[in-house]
This record gives sequence, structure tokens and C-alpha cells, in this order.
Amino acid sequence: MTDAATIMQALGKHAKEAAKAMRMADTCAKNDALTRAAAIMRRDMPEILAANAMDMQAAEANGLEAALKDRLLLNAERIDAVAEGLEQIAALPDPVGAIDNLRYRPSGIQVGHMRVPIGVIGIIYESRPNVTADAAALCLKSGNAAILRGGSEAIHSNRAIAACLRRALVDSGLPQNAIQLIDSTDRALVGALLKSDAYVDVIIPRGGKSLIKRVMADSRVPVIKHLDGICHVYIDADADADMALNIAVNAKTHRYGVCNAMETLLIHQHAAAVTAPIVQAMIDKGVEVRGCDKIRALTQNLNVKAATADDWSMEYLAAVLSVRIVDDFEQAVEHIAEFSSGHTESIVTENYAAGQRFLREVDSSSVMWNASTRFADGFEYGLGAEIGISTDRLHVRGPVGLEGLTTQKWIVFGNGQIRQ
Amino acid sequence: MTDAATIMQALGKHAKEAAKAMRMADTCAKNDALTRAAAIMRRDMPEILAANAMDMQAAEANGLEAALKDRLLLNAERIDAVAEGLEQIAALPDPVGAIDNLRYRPSGIQVGHMRVPIGVIGIIYESRPNVTADAAALCLKSGNAAILRGGSEAIHSNRAIAACLRRALVDSGLPQNAIQLIDSTDRALVGALLKSDAYVDVIIPRGGKSLIKRVMADSRVPVIKHLDGICHVYIDADADADMALNIAVNAKTHRYGVCNAMETLLIHQHAAAVTAPIVQAMIDKGVEVRGCDKIRALTQNLNVKAATADDWSMEYLAAVLSVRIVDDFEQAVEHIAEFSSGHTESIVTENYAAGQRFLREVDSSSVMWNASTRFADGFEYGLGAEIGISTDRLHVRGPVGLEGLTTQKWIVFGNGQIRQ
Repeated sequence: MTDAATIMQALGKHAKEAAKAMRMADTCAKNDALTRAAAIMRRDMPEILAANAMDMQAAEANGLEAALKDRLLLNAERIDAVAEGLEQIAALPDPVGAIDNLRYRPSGIQVGHMRVPIGVIGIIYESRPNVTADAAALCLKSGNAAILRGGSEAIHSNRAIAACLRRALVDSGLPQNAIQLIDSTDRALVGALLKSDAYVDVIIPRGGKSLIKRVMADSRVPVIKHLDGICHVYIDADADADMALNIAVNAKTHRYGVCNAMETLLIHQHAAAVTAPIVQAMIDKGVEVRGCDKIRALTQNLNVKAATADDWSMEYLAAVLSVRIVDDFEQAVEHIAEFSSGHTESIVTENYAAGQRFLREVDSSSVMWNASTRFADGFEYGLGAEIGISTDRLHVRGPVGLEGLTTQKWIVFGNGQIRQ
Repeated sequence: MTDAATIMQALGKHAKEAAKAMRMADTCAKNDALTRAAAIMRRDMPEILAANAMDMQAAEANGLEAALKDRLLLNAERIDAVAEGLEQIAALPDPVGAIDNLRYRPSGIQVGHMRVPIGVIGIIYESRPNVTADAAALCLKSGNAAILRGGSEAIHSNRAIAACLRRALVDSGLPQNAIQLIDSTDRALVGALLKSDAYVDVIIPRGGKSLIKRVMADSRVPVIKHLDGICHVYIDADADADMALNIAVNAKTHRYGVCNAMETLLIHQHAAAVTAPIVQAMIDKGVEVRGCDKIRALTQNLNVKAATADDWSMEYLAAVLSVRIVDDFEQAVEHIAEFSSGHTESIVTENYAAGQRFLREVDSSSVMWNASTRFADGFEYGLGAEIGISTDRLHVRGPVGLEGLTTQKWIVFGNGQIRQ
């Protein structure tokens, strides 16, 4: 075995053992660990800041770009926000052990489902050190053991944060190996983690597309991932004009760099009257609009650039929007089927049949009727917290909260039944 | 691209297109296709039997062993049973489109889950030609498109059955490519199917361990699989003696070659009084009993062989049973954690605390209290039909019915809400 494989095997064994204890840990102990972790992070803030300063210094020396440096930076306010996040997760209901759909069968047995932790979860992420706490806390609360692999540029910060969490686990009588940080910047360890199907039950990558693609290509462990967020709003012929304007502007401009922002706006040809006001509003907000020929004809006095074929499959994550006039409902749905990443799409219409068809026919993790795509979010959906958004089809789709980090087993109550 | 890759790409494209139509197919059309398929199978019985005769002839020529030949054999009765199975699937409720947990959020949006098909399902199976109909029917009813790859020894039978199903799809106005058979015995096509992550959403292998292991090693597509069935019954100190005897005998001897049969019996040392009667009953049924030293001391007049270390991890699938006396509840649970395949375990006890702990602490797809492990079955659990039993942890665990072949998307109803 390579060194990386040997290190991963040890981490894997520790995690599996910890997972066994975490599976049976009671809610009180888990909540206690989370609130203690928050207190320890606040108490040890100087150590965390000192560790972060080392990362920031290295970032400076390595010429990291400003946006990445901002992601890496911790300050008192940010650490406090992370601690508060831990307390919020402590306050959420514990999904583990919940029994549902328990019913009698003709044989006399009672059958139902019990919610249980997945087991060992590997999290691979990039520069934000707060993910160390957020992701670990969600795994902890859902009764799993976590193996964390953060970005090498955040290694000192991650180490300091993980130490707080592990301290809190011990103080609460839980195994400290329920949270393990891969404490090395050796890239071979990522490869070894992805091959650890004997120890790790699922890998959740959080980061840019190149990270996700590497994980997809190399992982022997099942993956829950978020790939693209090419989200659409479709303004139907029967849309309320004001609502259409509000939703379109909110979906595009509320925040640009987020996966649930609208990237393409589709407008029914009979709703063309809304086109100019929406384009005007986007331009007023500083959004670059790229349109089809029909849009450009409708907005000649505005500065709409010609959209190229590539625009329809671009996730801008920026103040750029592509707009297309469609002939009818069917063309809108076809456009979405062809270009959407399956994240979130919304229709704006007062027409019952169109809304119902859209909800049924559009195959994305979130499908909305008369609401901004920006609502596709674990907090807005009531999950309390989210570890990410899944654009996969199996196990969990859309925002992933505590329940997405669990699975179910069948339980059977009998009183001596045997098969005839 | 290789020839196999080219063939698979064409099948994949057809399946993806068919899946789009199947996703929206109404329940009536799907049920109609299933009942028509049953009628066509009965009508075309001579053709199916003739095709099967060709497979049987080849099996004879190739010296296939008797058990495999029996699996391959179709006769009027078996074909009628398959047709009846199709009608039963038609009678099941359609899981697609069901909305649950719809609730208002503080923002005013209404959020819920809608059940939707997975998409394209690849089924890889071995010699039983009835799987062609069973698996395809479950995929059809759940709104998916299926790509079927049966054993090469059943190619003529599978082709004849698939033709009936495809005919029925067309007659019901559904796309015939919702069911495609890989009509070649080229093994490279299995490899190509496992690499078709661009077209196939999940692979379900059904067959022996070597098939499953190949699929696990090579698949780029997510897999729902069944690996081992090393099931345990644990007779607690407070077990009812008659119940313990009945459950143990039923779990072992009701059928031997099934994955939910008991392979190891654990007996609490204080329940040792049940040992001799149970061992006697097993031996009377022709079961070879292999025991630990303590069991052998308790049953000196009976023919109990010494269990070796290997016995505890053997899936006999035969009239063989390993038996161990354990010191206490904890040792039973530890034994299960070490040797179980995570399929099904059952405790026999009248003790409330022991039963509750067992349900909570044992981490298998089915955990039972005072019932025979033989109940771990889609029909017994009320799923109506099953495509297999999953020993995986993600997406679906235990018996997999129609719901396991679906996933969920979030739906949002608003009336103009935007994010603040």
C-alpha cells in the first residue's frame, strides 16, 4: 500500500468505529457536543485567528487572488457566526430513530421504517474554513462520523477549528474520531479517500466544477454532489406582468454568484410586452443582457447583445443574463430539458393548466410556480441547515439537510410469526 | 469508440428519449401496456416456448448444470405466472406524481416533494428469462425506461419476451424504447453499459456474487445492489422457548437457497435449554449443524460438527446452519456487527429493553423482533412486487419495490414571492 492508502486506512478504521458509537448516541449528547463546540470556538478564538493568520500569510506569499483570500479570511465576527451555526444545528430536531409508516400486514407482523445515520461521510471542500465546522456539525447531529478534507490553503485554520470540535466531542462523552481532519496537504490523500469504499459510505464534494469532476471520475464511493446551477425562469403568456418583473429581477440580481440564481430567462411570445421593462430593469441593475434575435428586435433602444449558442449552457454566476423569446409553452419546456442543469426552474403564470404541466414536466431538483428561483435553499425550505444542494437523482435531490445525511432501515415487530 | 460503445450510445439515446415520454405517461396508459403485455405473452406462448427450446438445446449442448437449466426453462405454467405478475403490477398504485409533506413556509411559499421516475434503469441479470418481464414491468409502471441485459444462455427467450412487452407499449401509445433488450451476447456490451453514465441513471444487477462484484468494480453509473444474505436469529435469555424453536426452524428451513434464510443462530447462554430441541429439529429436517464448543457440549448425543472460523461468514444458501452460544446481549450484537452482511437479523425475546435495543443497535436493512427472517420480502412488506433487495445504504435499503425505482423533486407554489 502507498503511504496515502495506509493513512486513509487508519482514518477509515477510526471513523467506522466512531460511527458505531455515534449511531447510538442520544440526542442530548450530540446537542451538548455542538453547544460545547460553539463555546470552545469562542473561547479559543485567539488560537483560531492565529492559525488563520498563518494561512493568510501563505496566501499572500502565494499570490492568491482577492476573492479566494476573502473566502479564507476569518475574523471575530465570522467565527462567532460559525459558532452560532453550531448552536442552530443543536436546536434542530434529531432525525435519527424516527419511525414512520408502521403498519400491520396480513401476516400479523407490523412493518415500518426507522431513520438511521448513513455511517461514515467524507467531505472534500475548498478554501472556506467555516465548512470544517458546518459540515462536521451536520454529520455529528445526524449521527454520522465525518472525514474532512479541506483545501490546503486553509490547513491551519481547519486544524484549529477541528481541534475545537474534537475537544467538544470528548467533553460530551462522544468519540473524538467522529470528526477527523485529513491533516496533510498531500493530494494523494484525496485519491485514497475516493478509493476507501471499505470505510466510507458516501463522499460529498463541495467546491468548484474541477473538484466535482475529479471526484466523479475517481470515486469508488457513492457521491452526493452539486454540479451546475443553470436555472431558468419562464414567463408564460398568462403571467402577471408585475409579478414577472419582480421574480425575474429577484432571481437574477438578488445575488449573482449563487447556484440558484437565474441564468436564462424565457419569455412567451405573447408576453412580449414584459420584455422591455424587464430588460430595462436588468440593465439598470448593471446586468449584461444577451438575447435572441426576437428580443433584440423588441428592445432596439436598449443595449442587448446577441446571445451565441454557448450562452444557453453557461452558468454565468455573474451579472449576465441570457434571454430568449419562445413560441409556446412546449418550446420553453424543451429549452429547459436541453440546457438546464436540473437544479431549479420557475414558471410565472396565472394559468392553471400551464402551471400544473410545468410542475409535472420539468425534471429539475426544484420546480416552482410563481416564486423566485432563489428560494431553492435548505433554510427557505425549512431544513434548518444544508450541507449543499444535490443535482443527483438518487438518494437525495435539491437542498440536503440532516435527513439527507440519514437513511432508513426496515423494522418488524412480530409475536412469533413464521412464513407459511 | 468501440463497437460496443457505439451500440450502447444508440440504446442510451433511445432510452433517454423514451424516459422523457414515460415520465409523463398517465397511469392508465402504463397499466394498459402491462395488461396488454400479459395478454400478448399468453397469445404468443408458442413463439416464446419455441425460443426457449432453442436456449434449452444450447444449454444441453454446452453441458449446463441441472439447476441452471431449471432456471432457464419456461413452460406454459411459468409463462402464465409471468403474465399474471404483469397484471399484478398493473393493479398496484402508481407512485409517480404523488405529492407529500406540502407545507407553508414563513416566506409564504408552499413547499413539498413530488415523486418522479429515476429515468433510465439498466438491469443486468443472469439465466432466468422471467426477469426480462418482471424487471421491465416494474420499470414501466414506475415511469422509467429500462435497458435489459440478460444472460447469454437465455438470449432467445429474452428476445421473445421483450418483443411481447415492446408490442404492448406500442399498442398502448407508449414508446417501445421504454424497454430495450441488449440483443447480443457480446460481453463487451456489459462493460459499455456500466460506463454509460451519460445515459443511464442507475444499474441494478441481479445475480450471483461474481456478477455483482464485476458491476461494483467497473460501474461509473450508481448501482443498487444485493450482495450477501448472512442473516442471524438471536435467541435472547428471555425468549419464549416455543417461539424460539418455531422462528429458528422457519428462518432456516422454510427455503434454503434464499437470501433471507438464517445462516447463523445465536443463543444466549441462559437460553441454553432451547438449544437441544432446536438442534434436534434442524437435524430432523436434514440440516447440517455446525456449532461452537459450548453448543457441542450441550448436544453431545447429537451430530453437531465443529464450526470453523470461516463458518461465521459463510452464506450457505443450503441446509447448513452455524450455531453459537453467546455470553450476553452485547456479544450477540457484536457478533452480528462483525459477521452480518447487513441484510436481515431477528431477535427472539419477551424482554422489552432487549428488543428495543436490538432494533436500534443492529444496523441491517431489516431488523426484526419475534418474527422469522423470511419476512424480509417486498410482498410480505406490502410493496406489491420487488425488483430485488438492496444491501446498500443509500437511496433504498431492503426490499425494493416501485417506490425504490423513483426519486423525488421539490415543488414550490408561490404567488409572486421573492427573496428578501
